[in-house]
Amino acid sequence: MMTNLQRLYPSEDLASRSILLSVADTGQACFTADLPGGASVAAAAQAALGGKFVDPRAALFLLPWEEACTMSHAFSMLHWRDTINFCPGCGAELRSRPAGHAKNCPSCDTVQYPMTSPVGITMITDAAQTRSLLVRQGRHPPGMYSCVAGFLEPGETIESCIRREVAEEVGIDLDEVGYMGSQHWPFNGGQLMVGCYGRTEQTELDIDTEELEDARWFSAEEILEAYKRIQNNPMARIRNETQKGELWVPPRGTIANRMIKTWLTDCGLLPR
Amino acid sequence: MMTNLQRLYPSEDLASRSILLSVADTGQACFTADLPGGASVAAAAQAALGGKFVDPRAALFLLPWEEACTMSHAFSMLHWRDTINFCPGCGAELRSRPAGHAKNCPSCDTVQYPMTSPVGITMITDAAQTRSLLVRQGRHPPGMYSCVAGFLEPGETIESCIRREVAEEVGIDLDEVGYMGSQHWPFNGGQLMVGCYGRTEQTELDIDTEELEDARWFSAEEILEAYKRIQNNPMARIRNETQKGELWVPPRGTIANRMIKTWLTDCGLLPR
Repeated sequence: MMTNLQRLYPSEDLASRSILLSVADTGQACFTADLPGGASVAAAAQAALGGKFVDPRAALFLLPWEEACTMSHAFSMLHWRDTINFCPGCGAELRSRPAGHAKNCPSCDTVQYPMTSPVGITMITDAAQTRSLLVRQGRHPPGMYSCVAGFLEPGETIESCIRREVAEEVGIDLDEVGYMGSQHWPFNGGQLMVGCYGRTEQTELDIDTEELEDARWFSAEEILEAYKRIQNNPMARIRNETQKGELWVPPRGTIANRMIKTWLTDCGLLPR
Repeated sequence: MMTNLQRLYPSEDLASRSILLSVADTGQACFTADLPGGASVAAAAQAALGGKFVDPRAALFLLPWEEACTMSHAFSMLHWRDTINFCPGCGAELRSRPAGHAKNCPSCDTVQYPMTSPVGITMITDAAQTRSLLVRQGRHPPGMYSCVAGFLEPGETIESCIRREVAEEVGIDLDEVGYMGSQHWPFNGGQLMVGCYGRTEQTELDIDTEELEDARWFSAEEILEAYKRIQNNPMARIRNETQKGELWVPPRGTIANRMIKTWLTDCGLLPR
Protein backbone atom coordinates (compact mmCIF):
# COMPACT_ATOMS: atom_id res chain seq x y z
CA MET A 1 0.00 0.00 0.00
CA MET A 2 2.71 2.44 1.08
CA THR A 3 4.80 1.40 -1.95
CA ASN A 4 1.86 2.00 -4.32
CA LEU A 5 1.39 5.41 -2.79
CA GLN A 6 5.11 6.26 -2.77
CA ARG A 7 5.24 5.64 -6.54
CA LEU A 8 2.76 8.50 -7.04
CA TYR A 9 4.97 10.90 -5.08
CA PRO A 10 8.51 10.29 -6.33
CA SER A 11 9.84 13.52 -4.82
CA GLU A 12 8.17 13.17 -1.38
CA ASP A 13 9.29 11.08 1.60
CA LEU A 14 5.85 9.76 2.58
CA ALA A 15 7.19 7.82 5.58
CA SER A 16 8.29 11.06 7.23
CA ARG A 17 4.84 12.59 6.57
CA SER A 18 3.11 9.60 8.22
CA ILE A 19 1.99 8.93 11.78
CA LEU A 20 1.79 5.38 13.13
CA LEU A 21 -1.72 4.73 14.48
CA SER A 22 -1.57 1.11 15.60
CA VAL A 23 0.00 -2.30 15.08
CA ALA A 24 -2.43 -5.23 14.87
CA ASP A 25 -1.78 -8.63 16.50
CA THR A 26 -0.92 -9.85 12.99
CA GLY A 27 1.95 -7.35 12.90
CA GLN A 28 0.25 -5.17 10.30
CA ALA A 29 0.88 -1.49 10.97
CA CYS A 30 -1.69 1.24 10.32
CA PHE A 31 -0.44 4.70 9.33
CA THR A 32 -2.07 7.99 8.46
CA ALA A 33 -0.63 10.66 6.17
CA ASP A 34 -1.82 13.84 4.52
CA LEU A 35 -0.97 13.52 0.86
CA PRO A 36 0.52 16.45 -1.02
CA GLY A 37 -0.45 17.43 -4.56
CA GLY A 38 -3.58 18.61 -6.32
CA ALA A 39 -6.59 17.03 -8.01
CA SER A 40 -4.62 15.10 -10.65
CA VAL A 41 -2.43 13.37 -8.05
CA ALA A 42 -5.54 12.66 -5.96
CA ALA A 43 -7.20 11.04 -8.99
CA ALA A 44 -4.08 8.92 -9.60
CA ALA A 45 -4.01 7.91 -5.91
CA GLN A 46 -7.68 6.90 -6.04
CA ALA A 47 -7.02 4.77 -9.12
CA ALA A 48 -3.85 3.18 -7.66
CA LEU A 49 -5.53 2.28 -4.36
CA GLY A 50 -9.04 1.53 -5.62
CA GLY A 51 -10.36 4.03 -3.09
CA LYS A 52 -11.99 7.43 -2.97
CA PHE A 53 -11.25 10.63 -1.06
CA VAL A 54 -14.31 11.81 0.87
CA ASP A 55 -15.14 14.60 3.29
CA PRO A 56 -14.03 13.41 6.77
CA ARG A 57 -17.42 14.18 8.30
CA ALA A 58 -19.18 12.15 5.60
CA ALA A 59 -16.72 9.32 6.24
CA LEU A 60 -17.73 9.23 9.92
CA PHE A 61 -21.40 9.02 8.88
CA LEU A 62 -20.85 6.21 6.37
CA LEU A 63 -18.04 3.98 7.68
CA PRO A 64 -18.54 0.93 9.93
CA TRP A 65 -17.84 1.67 13.62
CA GLU A 66 -14.26 0.29 13.82
CA GLU A 67 -13.15 2.15 10.71
CA ALA A 68 -14.84 5.34 11.88
CA CYS A 69 -12.81 5.13 15.12
CA THR A 70 -9.59 4.69 13.12
CA MET A 71 -10.52 7.64 10.92
CA SER A 72 -11.32 9.75 14.01
CA HIS A 73 -7.92 8.82 15.45
CA ALA A 74 -6.12 9.59 12.18
CA PHE A 75 -7.83 12.94 11.63
CA SER A 76 -7.03 14.03 15.21
CA MET A 77 -3.36 13.09 14.96
CA LEU A 78 -2.86 14.95 11.67
CA HIS A 79 -4.74 18.00 12.93
CA TRP A 80 -2.73 18.02 16.15
CA ARG A 81 0.57 17.65 14.29
CA ASP A 82 -0.28 20.56 11.99
CA THR A 83 -1.74 22.97 14.57
CA ILE A 84 0.24 22.51 17.82
CA ASN A 85 3.61 24.01 16.98
CA PHE A 86 4.73 26.01 20.02
CA CYS A 87 5.17 25.27 23.72
CA PRO A 88 2.25 26.88 25.59
CA GLY A 89 4.50 27.32 28.62
CA CYS A 90 7.50 29.13 27.16
CA GLY A 91 6.66 29.78 23.49
CA ALA A 92 9.59 27.79 22.04
CA GLU A 93 9.04 25.86 18.81
CA LEU A 94 8.18 22.20 19.52
CA ARG A 95 10.02 19.24 17.99
CA SER A 96 8.19 16.06 16.93
CA ARG A 97 9.24 12.81 18.55
CA PRO A 98 10.14 9.99 16.12
CA ALA A 99 6.80 8.09 16.10
CA GLY A 100 4.88 11.36 15.83
CA HIS A 101 2.73 10.84 18.95
CA ALA A 102 4.27 13.58 21.07
CA LYS A 103 6.30 16.77 20.71
CA ASN A 104 9.12 17.96 22.94
CA CYS A 105 9.89 21.49 24.01
CA PRO A 106 13.67 21.89 23.58
CA SER A 107 13.65 24.93 25.88
CA CYS A 108 11.67 23.91 29.00
CA ASP A 109 11.89 20.13 28.41
CA THR A 110 8.13 19.48 28.64
CA VAL A 111 6.22 17.05 26.41
CA GLN A 112 3.00 17.84 24.52
CA TYR A 113 0.48 15.11 23.64
CA PRO A 114 -2.68 15.29 21.48
CA MET A 115 -5.54 16.54 23.65
CA THR A 116 -9.15 15.40 23.83
CA SER A 117 -11.76 17.60 25.52
CA PRO A 118 -14.68 15.94 27.36
CA VAL A 119 -18.15 17.07 26.24
CA GLY A 120 -21.38 16.08 28.01
CA ILE A 121 -24.36 15.37 25.73
CA THR A 122 -27.85 14.64 27.07
CA MET A 123 -30.91 12.75 25.87
CA ILE A 124 -33.54 14.67 27.87
CA THR A 125 -36.86 12.90 28.37
CA ASP A 126 -39.97 13.52 30.44
CA ALA A 127 -40.87 11.39 33.45
CA ALA A 128 -43.40 9.32 31.43
CA GLN A 129 -40.81 8.62 28.68
CA THR A 130 -43.20 9.82 25.99
CA ARG A 131 -41.38 12.98 24.89
CA SER A 132 -37.80 14.14 24.38
CA LEU A 133 -36.37 17.66 24.39
CA LEU A 134 -34.20 18.47 21.37
CA VAL A 135 -32.50 21.75 20.53
CA ARG A 136 -31.14 23.52 17.48
CA GLN A 137 -28.35 26.03 16.98
CA GLY A 138 -28.35 28.61 14.20
CA ARG A 139 -25.46 26.80 12.48
CA HIS A 140 -27.41 23.51 12.21
CA PRO A 141 -28.80 22.49 8.79
CA PRO A 142 -32.50 23.40 8.19
CA GLY A 143 -34.91 21.39 10.38
CA MET A 144 -32.06 19.70 12.31
CA TYR A 145 -32.48 19.27 16.09
CA SER A 146 -30.08 17.45 18.39
CA CYS A 147 -29.29 16.81 22.06
CA VAL A 148 -28.06 19.50 24.49
CA ALA A 149 -24.25 19.36 24.64
CA GLY A 150 -21.39 21.36 26.12
CA PHE A 151 -17.78 21.20 27.26
CA LEU A 152 -16.95 19.91 30.71
CA GLU A 153 -15.43 22.58 32.95
CA PRO A 154 -12.61 21.99 35.46
CA GLY A 155 -13.93 20.62 38.76
CA GLU A 156 -16.97 18.93 37.20
CA THR A 157 -17.98 15.30 36.98
CA ILE A 158 -19.68 14.16 33.78
CA GLU A 159 -22.99 14.25 35.64
CA SER A 160 -22.52 17.77 37.04
CA CYS A 161 -21.48 19.01 33.58
CA ILE A 162 -24.70 17.54 32.14
CA ARG A 163 -26.84 19.16 34.87
CA ARG A 164 -25.18 22.58 34.44
CA GLU A 165 -25.40 22.56 30.63
CA VAL A 166 -29.08 21.56 30.64
CA ALA A 167 -29.91 24.19 33.30
CA GLU A 168 -28.00 26.90 31.41
CA GLU A 169 -29.29 26.14 27.92
CA VAL A 170 -32.95 25.22 28.49
CA GLY A 171 -33.60 26.09 32.16
CA ILE A 172 -34.43 22.50 33.13
CA ASP A 173 -33.44 20.85 36.43
CA LEU A 174 -32.83 17.17 35.78
CA ASP A 175 -34.17 14.71 38.37
CA GLU A 176 -31.98 11.84 37.20
CA VAL A 177 -28.82 11.57 35.10
CA GLY A 178 -27.26 8.31 33.90
CA TYR A 179 -24.46 7.22 31.59
CA MET A 180 -25.34 5.87 28.13
CA GLY A 181 -22.06 5.68 26.19
CA SER A 182 -19.14 7.59 24.74
CA GLN A 183 -17.54 8.36 21.39
CA HIS A 184 -14.51 10.24 20.10
CA TRP A 185 -15.23 13.13 17.74
CA PRO A 186 -12.22 14.52 15.88
CA PHE A 187 -13.48 18.01 15.03
CA ASN A 188 -13.07 21.22 17.08
CA GLY A 189 -9.69 20.06 18.38
CA GLY A 190 -10.82 16.56 19.41
CA GLN A 191 -13.68 15.75 21.78
CA LEU A 192 -14.73 12.84 23.95
CA MET A 193 -18.52 12.91 23.67
CA VAL A 194 -20.01 11.40 26.84
CA GLY A 195 -23.70 10.64 26.42
CA CYS A 196 -26.14 10.53 29.34
CA TYR A 197 -29.89 10.34 29.67
CA GLY A 198 -31.49 13.07 31.75
CA ARG A 199 -35.01 12.77 33.14
CA THR A 200 -37.17 15.63 34.34
CA GLU A 201 -40.73 16.27 35.51
CA GLN A 202 -40.37 19.92 34.46
CA THR A 203 -41.80 20.81 31.03
CA GLU A 204 -41.51 24.61 30.88
CA LEU A 205 -38.38 25.89 29.15
CA ASP A 206 -36.17 28.94 29.65
CA ILE A 207 -34.09 28.94 26.47
CA ASP A 208 -30.66 30.59 26.27
CA THR A 209 -31.18 32.35 22.95
CA GLU A 210 -27.50 33.25 22.66
CA GLU A 211 -26.61 29.55 22.44
CA LEU A 212 -29.77 28.12 20.87
CA GLU A 213 -32.13 29.08 18.08
CA ASP A 214 -34.87 26.80 19.41
CA ALA A 215 -35.61 24.04 21.93
CA ARG A 216 -38.73 21.91 21.82
CA TRP A 217 -40.38 18.81 23.24
CA PHE A 218 -41.06 16.21 20.53
CA SER A 219 -43.16 13.06 20.88
CA ALA A 220 -41.43 9.68 20.53
CA GLU A 221 -43.43 9.18 17.31
CA GLU A 222 -42.15 12.44 15.79
CA ILE A 223 -38.60 11.47 16.70
CA LEU A 224 -39.07 7.97 15.26
CA GLU A 225 -40.16 9.51 11.96
CA ALA A 226 -37.11 11.82 11.93
CA TYR A 227 -34.83 8.91 12.85
CA LYS A 228 -36.12 6.83 9.91
CA ARG A 229 -35.76 9.84 7.59
CA ILE A 230 -32.03 10.26 8.35
CA GLN A 231 -31.34 6.50 8.35
CA ASN A 232 -32.74 6.35 4.81
CA ASN A 233 -30.67 9.33 3.68
CA PRO A 234 -27.62 9.87 5.94
CA MET A 235 -25.98 12.12 3.35
CA ALA A 236 -28.81 14.66 3.68
CA ARG A 237 -26.77 16.17 6.54
CA ILE A 238 -23.73 16.75 4.30
CA ARG A 239 -25.56 17.61 1.09
CA ASN A 240 -27.78 20.19 2.82
CA GLU A 241 -30.92 18.35 1.71
CA THR A 242 -32.64 18.71 5.08
CA GLN A 243 -35.83 20.78 5.12
CA LYS A 244 -37.16 23.45 7.42
CA GLY A 245 -40.59 22.49 8.81
CA GLU A 246 -39.56 18.82 8.87
CA LEU A 247 -37.72 17.35 11.90
CA TRP A 248 -34.22 16.02 11.16
CA VAL A 249 -31.87 14.39 13.67
CA PRO A 250 -28.10 13.73 13.41
CA PRO A 251 -27.11 10.82 11.14
CA ARG A 252 -25.59 7.43 11.94
CA GLY A 253 -22.01 7.78 13.16
CA THR A 254 -22.89 10.46 15.73
CA ILE A 255 -23.48 9.74 19.41
CA ALA A 256 -26.75 11.72 19.27
CA ASN A 257 -28.09 9.30 16.66
CA ARG A 258 -27.07 6.33 18.83
CA MET A 259 -28.71 7.85 21.94
CA ILE A 260 -31.93 8.55 20.02
CA LYS A 261 -31.92 4.98 18.69
CA THR A 262 -31.43 3.59 22.23
CA TRP A 263 -34.31 5.68 23.59
CA LEU A 264 -36.67 4.69 20.74
CA THR A 265 -35.70 1.05 21.33
CA ASP A 266 -36.38 1.39 25.07
CA CYS A 267 -39.76 2.94 24.17
CA GLY A 268 -40.54 -0.19 22.12
CA LEU A 269 -40.67 1.79 18.85
CA LEU A 270 -37.60 0.12 17.33
CA PRO A 271 -36.80 -3.61 17.49
CA ARG A 272 -34.02 -4.68 19.85
CA MET B 1 -13.86 38.09 53.02
CA MET B 2 -12.14 39.81 50.11
CA THR B 3 -11.89 43.03 52.18
CA ASN B 4 -10.30 41.15 55.11
CA LEU B 5 -7.81 39.66 52.72
CA GLN B 6 -7.13 42.93 50.90
CA ARG B 7 -6.16 44.56 54.21
CA LEU B 8 -3.29 42.07 54.52
CA TYR B 9 -1.95 43.00 51.11
CA PRO B 10 -2.09 46.81 50.95
CA SER B 11 0.21 46.99 47.92
CA GLU B 12 -1.47 44.22 45.87
CA ASP B 13 -4.61 44.41 43.73
CA LEU B 14 -6.12 41.09 44.81
CA ALA B 15 -9.15 41.45 42.50
CA SER B 16 -6.87 41.39 39.46
CA ARG B 17 -5.12 38.26 40.81
CA SER B 18 -8.48 36.47 41.26
CA ILE B 19 -10.50 34.20 38.99
CA LEU B 20 -14.29 34.02 39.29
CA LEU B 21 -15.34 30.38 39.82
CA SER B 22 -19.11 30.61 40.20
CA VAL B 23 -22.06 32.72 41.30
CA ALA B 24 -24.59 30.99 43.56
CA ASP B 25 -28.37 31.43 43.23
CA THR B 26 -28.09 33.72 46.27
CA GLY B 27 -25.85 36.03 44.25
CA GLN B 28 -22.76 35.15 46.27
CA ALA B 29 -19.67 34.95 44.07
CA CYS B 30 -16.86 32.46 44.61
CA PHE B 31 -13.32 33.51 43.62
CA THR B 32 -9.92 31.87 43.75
CA ALA B 33 -6.59 33.68 44.07
CA ASP B 34 -2.99 32.77 44.71
CA LEU B 35 -1.81 34.97 47.54
CA PRO B 36 1.57 36.65 47.40
CA GLY B 37 3.94 36.95 50.35
CA GLY B 38 5.81 34.56 52.62
CA ALA B 39 5.13 32.68 55.83
CA SER B 40 4.39 35.74 57.99
CA VAL B 41 1.69 37.00 55.60
CA ALA B 42 0.28 33.48 55.38
CA ALA B 43 0.07 33.33 59.18
CA ALA B 44 -1.69 36.71 59.25
CA ALA B 45 -4.12 35.52 56.53
CA GLN B 46 -4.89 32.36 58.50
CA ALA B 47 -5.60 34.42 61.61
CA ALA B 48 -7.72 37.00 59.74
CA LEU B 49 -9.85 34.35 58.00
CA GLY B 50 -9.92 31.72 60.74
CA GLY B 51 -8.64 29.18 58.21
CA LYS B 52 -5.55 27.18 57.47
CA PHE B 53 -3.42 26.70 54.35
CA VAL B 54 -3.04 23.01 53.54
CA ASP B 55 -1.44 20.94 50.81
CA PRO B 56 -3.97 20.81 47.90
CA ARG B 57 -3.79 17.02 47.71
CA ALA B 58 -4.50 16.72 51.43
CA ALA B 59 -7.43 19.13 50.98
CA LEU B 60 -8.96 16.82 48.37
CA PHE B 61 -8.63 13.88 50.78
CA LEU B 62 -10.21 15.73 53.71
CA LEU B 63 -12.85 18.12 52.32
CA PRO B 64 -16.53 17.23 51.82
CA TRP B 65 -17.37 16.38 48.18
CA GLU B 66 -18.81 19.77 47.09
CA GLU B 67 -15.89 21.71 48.54
CA ALA B 68 -13.39 19.26 47.03
CA CYS B 69 -14.95 19.94 43.59
CA THR B 70 -14.63 23.70 44.14
CA MET B 71 -11.02 23.27 45.23
CA SER B 72 -10.31 21.07 42.18
CA HIS B 73 -11.84 23.76 39.95
CA ALA B 74 -9.86 26.54 41.67
CA PHE B 75 -6.53 24.72 41.54
CA SER B 76 -6.99 23.94 37.83
CA MET B 77 -7.85 27.52 36.91
CA LEU B 78 -4.83 28.97 38.75
CA HIS B 79 -2.51 26.34 37.31
CA TRP B 80 -3.84 26.96 33.80
CA ARG B 81 -3.51 30.74 34.18
CA ASP B 82 0.11 30.42 35.32
CA THR B 83 1.30 27.77 32.85
CA ILE B 84 -0.48 28.41 29.52
CA ASN B 85 1.14 31.61 28.28
CA PHE B 86 1.72 31.20 24.55
CA CYS B 87 -0.46 30.31 21.57
CA PRO B 88 0.34 26.70 20.58
CA GLY B 89 -0.56 27.56 16.98
CA CYS B 90 1.63 30.61 16.30
CA GLY B 91 3.72 31.13 19.46
CA ALA B 92 2.41 34.64 20.23
CA GLU B 93 1.95 35.63 23.88
CA LEU B 94 -1.66 35.08 25.01
CA ARG B 95 -3.80 37.77 26.67
CA SER B 96 -6.22 36.93 29.51
CA ARG B 97 -9.88 37.73 28.97
CA PRO B 98 -11.49 39.88 31.69
CA ALA B 99 -13.16 37.09 33.77
CA GLY B 100 -10.00 34.98 33.53
CA HIS B 101 -11.68 31.91 31.98
CA ALA B 102 -10.06 32.13 28.56
CA LYS B 103 -7.06 33.66 26.84
CA ASN B 104 -6.94 35.24 23.39
CA CYS B 105 -4.15 35.05 20.86
CA PRO B 106 -3.73 38.61 19.54
CA SER B 107 -1.88 37.30 16.49
CA CYS B 108 -4.01 34.45 15.07
CA ASP B 109 -7.23 35.40 16.89
CA THR B 110 -7.82 31.97 18.47
CA VAL B 111 -9.09 31.40 22.03
CA GLN B 112 -7.53 29.06 24.59
CA TYR B 113 -9.59 27.48 27.38
CA PRO B 114 -8.48 25.38 30.37
CA MET B 115 -8.15 21.77 29.25
CA THR B 116 -9.16 18.55 30.98
CA SER B 117 -7.76 15.22 29.79
CA PRO B 118 -9.93 12.09 30.06
CA VAL B 119 -8.35 9.18 31.95
CA GLY B 120 -9.89 5.70 32.15
CA ILE B 121 -9.54 3.92 35.53
CA THR B 122 -10.64 0.33 36.08
CA MET B 123 -11.81 -1.75 39.03
CA ILE B 124 -10.78 -5.18 37.70
CA THR B 125 -12.51 -8.17 39.28
CA ASP B 126 -12.68 -11.88 38.58
CA ALA B 127 -15.81 -13.55 37.24
CA ALA B 128 -16.82 -14.81 40.71
CA GLN B 129 -16.44 -11.31 42.23
CA THR B 130 -14.19 -12.64 44.98
CA ARG B 131 -10.91 -11.00 43.96
CA SER B 132 -9.74 -7.70 42.52
CA LEU B 133 -6.57 -6.87 40.59
CA LEU B 134 -4.67 -3.85 41.94
CA VAL B 135 -1.38 -2.43 40.71
CA ARG B 136 1.43 -0.27 42.04
CA GLN B 137 3.85 2.12 40.39
CA GLY B 138 7.33 2.82 41.72
CA ARG B 139 6.29 6.36 42.68
CA HIS B 140 3.44 5.14 44.94
CA PRO B 141 3.92 5.30 48.74
CA PRO B 142 5.09 2.02 50.37
CA GLY B 143 2.45 -0.74 50.27
CA MET B 144 0.03 1.37 48.16
CA TYR B 145 -1.86 -0.40 45.35
CA SER B 146 -4.52 1.19 43.16
CA CYS B 147 -6.61 0.61 40.03
CA VAL B 148 -5.16 0.44 36.49
CA ALA B 149 -5.45 3.89 34.88
CA GLY B 150 -4.30 5.66 31.73
CA PHE B 151 -4.99 8.56 29.39
CA LEU B 152 -7.60 8.19 26.67
CA GLU B 153 -6.09 8.36 23.18
CA PRO B 154 -7.71 10.07 20.18
CA GLY B 155 -10.27 7.81 18.47
CA GLU B 156 -11.10 5.85 21.64
CA THR B 157 -14.31 5.52 23.61
CA ILE B 158 -14.01 5.32 27.40
CA GLU B 159 -14.59 1.59 27.14
CA SER B 160 -11.94 0.99 24.45
CA CYS B 161 -9.44 3.08 26.44
CA ILE B 162 -10.12 0.89 29.50
CA ARG B 163 -9.68 -2.32 27.47
CA ARG B 164 -6.43 -1.12 25.87
CA GLU B 165 -4.90 0.12 29.14
CA VAL B 166 -5.72 -3.11 30.99
CA ALA B 167 -4.36 -5.23 28.12
CA GLU B 168 -1.17 -3.14 27.90
CA GLU B 169 -0.43 -2.90 31.61
CA VAL B 170 -1.39 -6.34 32.96
CA GLY B 171 -2.05 -8.44 29.83
CA ILE B 172 -5.71 -9.07 30.72
CA ASP B 173 -8.57 -9.20 28.19
CA LEU B 174 -11.69 -7.87 29.88
CA ASP B 175 -14.95 -9.74 29.19
CA GLU B 176 -17.17 -6.90 30.36
CA VAL B 177 -16.65 -3.17 30.95
CA GLY B 178 -19.21 -0.84 32.54
CA TYR B 179 -19.35 2.75 33.76
CA MET B 180 -19.18 3.44 37.51
CA GLY B 181 -18.66 7.20 37.88
CA SER B 182 -16.40 10.16 37.19
CA GLN B 183 -14.39 12.78 39.05
CA HIS B 184 -12.23 15.78 38.20
CA TRP B 185 -8.63 15.61 39.35
CA PRO B 186 -6.68 18.87 39.17
CA PHE B 187 -3.11 17.56 39.06
CA ASN B 188 -1.00 16.70 35.98
CA GLY B 189 -2.68 19.48 33.99
CA GLY B 190 -6.29 18.55 34.89
CA GLN B 191 -7.89 15.14 34.38
CA LEU B 192 -11.40 13.76 34.09
CA MET B 193 -11.12 10.40 35.82
CA VAL B 194 -13.73 8.04 34.35
CA GLY B 195 -14.16 4.93 36.47
CA CYS B 196 -15.36 1.60 35.06
CA TYR B 197 -15.58 -1.92 36.37
CA GLY B 198 -13.87 -4.55 34.25
CA ARG B 199 -14.59 -8.26 34.62
CA THR B 200 -12.40 -11.08 33.40
CA GLU B 201 -12.17 -14.88 33.62
CA GLN B 202 -8.43 -14.66 32.97
CA THR B 203 -6.20 -14.79 36.06
CA GLU B 204 -2.68 -14.99 34.63
CA LEU B 205 -0.89 -11.65 34.34
CA ASP B 206 1.63 -10.23 31.88
CA ILE B 207 2.86 -7.13 33.69
CA ASP B 208 4.35 -4.13 31.85
CA THR B 209 7.32 -3.61 34.16
CA GLU B 210 8.15 -0.25 32.58
CA GLU B 211 4.83 1.16 33.82
CA LEU B 212 4.24 -0.93 36.93
CA GLU B 213 6.30 -2.17 39.84
CA ASP B 214 3.75 -4.87 40.69
CA ALA B 215 0.24 -6.12 39.94
CA ARG B 216 -1.56 -8.64 42.09
CA TRP B 217 -4.94 -10.27 42.75
CA PHE B 218 -6.21 -9.50 46.26
CA SER B 219 -9.17 -11.12 48.00
CA ALA B 220 -12.17 -8.94 48.87
CA GLU B 221 -11.28 -9.48 52.56
CA GLU B 222 -7.72 -8.19 52.07
CA ILE B 223 -9.07 -5.14 50.25
CA LEU B 224 -11.69 -4.54 52.96
CA GLU B 225 -8.92 -4.51 55.57
CA ALA B 226 -6.88 -2.02 53.49
CA TYR B 227 -9.97 0.12 52.91
CA LYS B 228 -10.66 0.34 56.66
CA ARG B 229 -6.98 1.14 57.32
CA ILE B 230 -7.00 4.20 55.04
CA GLN B 231 -10.47 5.35 56.18
CA ASN B 232 -9.14 5.44 59.74
CA ASN B 233 -6.02 7.34 58.73
CA PRO B 234 -6.51 9.20 55.41
CA MET B 235 -3.45 11.37 56.06
CA ALA B 236 -1.19 8.30 55.96
CA ARG B 237 -1.01 8.88 52.18
CA ILE B 238 0.36 12.42 52.60
CA ARG B 239 2.48 11.84 55.70
CA ASN B 240 4.19 8.79 54.17
CA GLU B 241 3.04 6.61 57.05
CA THR B 242 2.05 3.71 54.81
CA GLN B 243 4.03 0.49 55.26
CA LYS B 244 5.59 -1.97 52.88
CA GLY B 245 4.25 -5.50 53.44
CA GLU B 246 0.83 -4.08 54.37
CA LEU B 247 -1.79 -3.34 51.67
CA TRP B 248 -2.79 0.34 51.38
CA VAL B 249 -5.37 1.77 48.96
CA PRO B 250 -5.98 5.41 47.92
CA PRO B 251 -7.76 7.56 50.51
CA ARG B 252 -11.22 9.13 50.52
CA GLY B 253 -11.49 11.90 47.92
CA THR B 254 -10.04 9.74 45.12
CA ILE B 255 -12.18 7.92 42.57
CA ALA B 256 -10.21 4.70 43.24
CA ASN B 257 -11.35 4.80 46.88
CA ARG B 258 -14.96 5.31 45.78
CA MET B 259 -14.78 2.42 43.28
CA ILE B 260 -13.27 0.10 45.90
CA LYS B 261 -16.00 1.12 48.35
CA THR B 262 -18.71 0.42 45.74
CA TRP B 263 -17.27 -3.01 44.98
CA LEU B 264 -16.95 -3.96 48.67
CA THR B 265 -20.55 -2.80 49.17
CA ASP B 266 -21.73 -4.88 46.19
CA CYS B 267 -19.85 -7.85 47.71
CA GLY B 268 -21.86 -7.36 50.92
CA LEU B 269 -18.73 -6.52 52.96
CA LEU B 270 -19.75 -2.90 53.62
CA PRO B 271 -23.24 -1.71 54.58
CA ARG B 272 -25.26 0.06 51.90
